[in-house]
Amino acid sequence: MEKIEIDSGIAPFPKPAVLVGAIVDGKPNFMNLAWLTRISFNPHMWLMSLRNTRYTGRGIKEQGKFSINIPGADLVVKLDYCGITSGQNVDKSKLFDVFYGKLETVPMIRECPVCFELTVFQIIEMLDRHLIIGEVKHAYSEERYLTDGKLDQKKINQLVYTQPPSRYWALGEGVADAFSVGKELEK
Amino acid sequence: MEKIEIDSGIAPFPKPAVLVGAIVDGKPNFMNLAWLTRISFNPHMWLMSLRNTRYTGRGIKEQGKFSINIPGADLVVKLDYCGITSGQNVDKSKLFDVFYGKLETVPMIRECPVCFELTVFQIIEMLDRHLIIGEVKHAYSEERYLTDGKLDQKKINQLVYTQPPSRYWALGEGVADAFSVGKELEK
Repeated sequence: MEKIEIDSGIAPFPKPAVLVGAIVDGKPNFMNLAWLTRISFNPHMWLMSLRNTRYTGRGIKEQGKFSINIPGADLVVKLDYCGITSGQNVDKSKLFDVFYGKLETVPMIRECPVCFELTVFQIIEMLDRHLIIGEVKHAYSEERYLTDGKLDQKKINQLVYTQPPSRYWALGEGVADAFSVGKELEK
Repeated sequence: MEKIEIDSGIAPFPKPAVLVGAIVDGKPNFMNLAWLTRISFNPHMWLMSLRNTRYTGRGIKEQGKFSINIPGADLVVKLDYCGITSGQNVDKSKLFDVFYGKLETVPMIRECPVCFELTVFQIIEMLDRHLIIGEVKHAYSEERYLTDGKLDQKKINQLVYTQPPSRYWALGEGVADAFSVGKELEK
């Protein structure tokens, strides 16, 4: 079939829908984030892109550490609320049951099935963005989300974010195992 | 419930599963990529992380342009094959029906529902990685993937990649609209 040119302002691949936590102005704050990717295995690094005026970004810069919390679908209302409000105007410190881990001053969300503590490795300033590169230091979860000691995707019931349309989805059916199904083409 | 510390080497959020295309050594080559995020709206920029020894990365550096192709679930075998083989050893130029767009020398995959042409904005060298920042220039699709002139997530049937486990999934049910469902918490 013939390809046609369409609006190039879209990014139609699946994105995470996570809550980034940091202490800002002395109290826990959380923002909704979709522009996140892993960039390195060893050391274990993630990169996220924030507008440079973001309230949470200021806390991350000041503290040098932050959390990334993976919400299940049951948290979608609070997740979205954290995306449409700024800590500059709204106190989000009581929105969740906040707990702390080994990095001591990184607020994490107990209602989230998996929470990560990261330290800032580097912040790259580019255009109107801060590209924040964090090194993953610790991960926390609960027995009920594990199967044979390993995190179970279906149990954590994480959300997938798309744009367009700006919508949260559940993970669907498993299609195939990676580094495996393609072997049938090897001769 | 009590949180317990778990292996921090995981990144349990949804990732894209796309095919990156470039001319390398004079012919089209394609690699499987999951470490990709949007980083800017305007200009429209994406960032991807590649090991600095990657064959495709060399082509991108030399050419200053590349494609990102979003496969549907029906392409999962070829997608995975492109992840377990390197263009250094295997000729992938005949694997797909390749077409070219406005940037002229950026190979794209006709079997993919959506294809993007990007130019290299910046390459950041860090650790053993190349962080390649591309500016999205053109997007191509087909009438059959559009609804009311807009790309339809359900029609393109893109894949979601997870790790752990290393697996491709379909997009599931819609959970809620973003920038919308959270409004019920605003007072």
